[in-house]
Amino acid sequence: MALYDLKSLLERLRKERPLVHNITNYVVMNFTANTLLAMGASPVMAHAVAEVEEMVSLARAFVINIGTLSEHWIEAMLKGGKRANALGIPVILDPVGSGATSLRTRTFQMMTRELKLAVVRGNASEVLSYASEAVRTKGVEAIHSVEQAAQAARETAGRIRAVVAITGPVDVITDGDAVIRCRNGHPLLGMVTGTGCAATTAIAAFAGITPDPLEAAAAGLAFFGLAGELAAQKAQAPGSYRVALVDALYEITPDEFQAGAKLERT
Amino acid sequence: MALYDLKSLLERLRKERPLVHNITNYVVMNFTANTLLAMGASPVMAHAVAEVEEMVSLARAFVINIGTLSEHWIEAMLKGGKRANALGIPVILDPVGSGATSLRTRTFQMMTRELKLAVVRGNASEVLSYASEAVRTKGVEAIHSVEQAAQAARETAGRIRAVVAITGPVDVITDGDAVIRCRNGHPLLGMVTGTGCAATTAIAAFAGITPDPLEAAAAGLAFFGLAGELAAQKAQAPGSYRVALVDALYEITPDEFQAGAKLERT
Amino acid sequence: MALYDLKSLLERLRKERPLVHNITNYVVMNFTANTLLAMGASPVMAHAVAEVEEMVSLARAFVINIGTLSEHWIEAMLKGGKRANALGIPVILDPVGSGATSLRTRTFQMMTRELKLAVVRGNASEVLSYASEAVRTKGVEAIHSVEQAAQAARETAGRIRAVVAITGPVDVITDGDAVIRCRNGHPLLGMVTGTGCAATTAIAAFAGITPDPLEAAAAGLAFFGLAGELAAQKAQAPGSYRVALVDALYEITPDEFQAGAKLERT
Repeated sequence: MALYDLKSLLERLRKERPLVHNITNYVVMNFTANTLLAMGASPVMAHAVAEVEEMVSLARAFVINIGTLSEHWIEAMLKGGKRANALGIPVILDPVGSGATSLRTRTFQMMTRELKLAVVRGNASEVLSYASEAVRTKGVEAIHSVEQAAQAARETAGRIRAVVAITGPVDVITDGDAVIRCRNGHPLLGMVTGTGCAATTAIAAFAGITPDPLEAAAAGLAFFGLAGELAAQKAQAPGSYRVALVDALYEITPDEFQAGAKLERT
Repeated sequence: MALYDLKSLLERLRKERPLVHNITNYVVMNFTANTLLAMGASPVMAHAVAEVEEMVSLARAFVINIGTLSEHWIEAMLKGGKRANALGIPVILDPVGSGATSLRTRTFQMMTRELKLAVVRGNASEVLSYASEAVRTKGVEAIHSVEQAAQAARETAGRIRAVVAITGPVDVITDGDAVIRCRNGHPLLGMVTGTGCAATTAIAAFAGITPDPLEAAAAGLAFFGLAGELAAQKAQAPGSYRVALVDALYEITPDEFQAGAKLERT
Repeated sequence: MALYDLKSLLERLRKERPLVHNITNYVVMNFTANTLLAMGASPVMAHAVAEVEEMVSLARAFVINIGTLSEHWIEAMLKGGKRANALGIPVILDPVGSGATSLRTRTFQMMTRELKLAVVRGNASEVLSYASEAVRTKGVEAIHSVEQAAQAARETAGRIRAVVAITGPVDVITDGDAVIRCRNGHPLLGMVTGTGCAATTAIAAFAGITPDPLEAAAAGLAFFGLAGELAAQKAQAPGSYRVALVDALYEITPDEFQAGAKLERT
């Protein structure tokens, strides 16, 4: 039996076209906006401290992506996140590059303290950077299997009280208790910049539809990964693959989503 | 009889390749630059307060787009706009998101006071946000027909003494007196981020060629909309549609433009 | 006999996937990142003063591109550049728009004083803007031939003690002594925004592999130009050409690179 009613979820997404407010990095802003439009949601990008609270109050999900961080934006991210929390709007965090610099690691950790996050999505090294330095020193090298990723994700999810998704060859999604694996995806996704960030915003789109962040995270990753698989049937090099990917986000029907999602609870 | 000599206008654009200076939002900068290059103009993006006056003096049109506004950029927009005014360089404003936040609405209104604008292009809700709050409360819901959009555009154009273009299924372009309707366009344009912003920059490209802002606005919207129609003959999903759109901007000949423009004075 | 062992160079690039840190302009960030990924390198974009030194220390090449300059970014560029110099990481400068505004010209000149640059790549007017005003007044108009471009590049290279590459119909690359010409390229590259900036980052990718900046500059321009030629066999309009260009960056094999590079020492 299917884990979720993904058919209905996508139908509602395309009918309701939830507004997703993104404070995201410069590199992927255009791709993120096009991802949201193609899959059926509505994007807005706004980062000015002076308007972020007003804008987020119009949205049904709020994405914080620290990919090209600067001090001023951290203030806007926090302000927007706190208003979203006050209004019950889900906050989705993508800690891009956390672990690579202390600014990013500190910002990730600070956000987990200051905000109630619905979902955190990153790769293994980004998510692991949350842990204490003692744990971090073993770092990504310590993760040799999906089982270990799942364990790291569960521990982090429990501590920050959010759904944590670690993406990789197999994605692991957990609320600290239940663990879902997602086997959708394709290696060519790694040859296009911003596909991780776009997967995060796909999660946010579904978080604008379902109140269950575990379902939203699983649906977002399965949907984006499925689009990645379908695109690979049309294109084998990254320029044309990216075009086919956006097409696939638009073309996947609710029935195809239900049939193509490779989600399993473990 | 055709409303304008669009054939000659496009010939001159491609021969003279006018430099269009844009202070535009992060999301669309790349798409805007590629739009200008493909249609035959030359783009430059520069927003530093320290150089905006010098840069705009090299340009033949100046675009102000408030899509990802921040305080510092408002200063550069004003400085560039005032220098452009002093030099007789047309200023084209795209009040993205005006009405959604008070920062944007105030910035739009302030620009109409501080600058002599040649053309303002927005959707109905953005343009209506200019009006007083009393009028705004009736808002976009009050616009049920092209006639009502035309009336709103005329009133706004008269008050701000600029050409106003409200884009939608049918575009309305007016200097407060004459009203032109443009029926070019395609629904898929709404599935690609930045097509509104790109239409604005297409207006600016033509404003670098003709001194008549009504003609520039009509030509820009007809040209961009025609490209949208031609792209839809090649692609039916937003990834490949965007590629076909840029191709069409490049491929439309002066004769095709003259024949394909759907402009009528009412 | 071939000038360089480009086959081996590309093999090593794809095996080692060097991390290239870019502080580049908003317009091209996405295209630059996709260029690096497609050709086989790893991109990172980071400009915050608070993290630029830490990030650059992880990289094997550092790109400074002044295309959308602002005061705050100049500080980050300098900080990153100095740390790169201290660590022996090659710094590649793209003085976009130098000569167009005094902010850009001054910034270019200041960087040549403050940093040890490995390679400077620009078009003739950008590179010539380095010279004293007396020389500049004759400007680009003084360059009527590849010979004159080569002479200007040699003089500049000697003064700033860096490899200088002037790109145009024929590229000229020199360390002040040896001069290499590159005949790869295609006119359609000029119809896509950011191809100059992307060529610069291609140089940086190779500078992460070879310690010889002359070789890196020649390889980067030959590789990017060859991709431009191959793309023109697939597409003749700028939207689809850009897609084919990214595909070509990915598809060129080491043998094709060796066979297709049009480099000659003069």
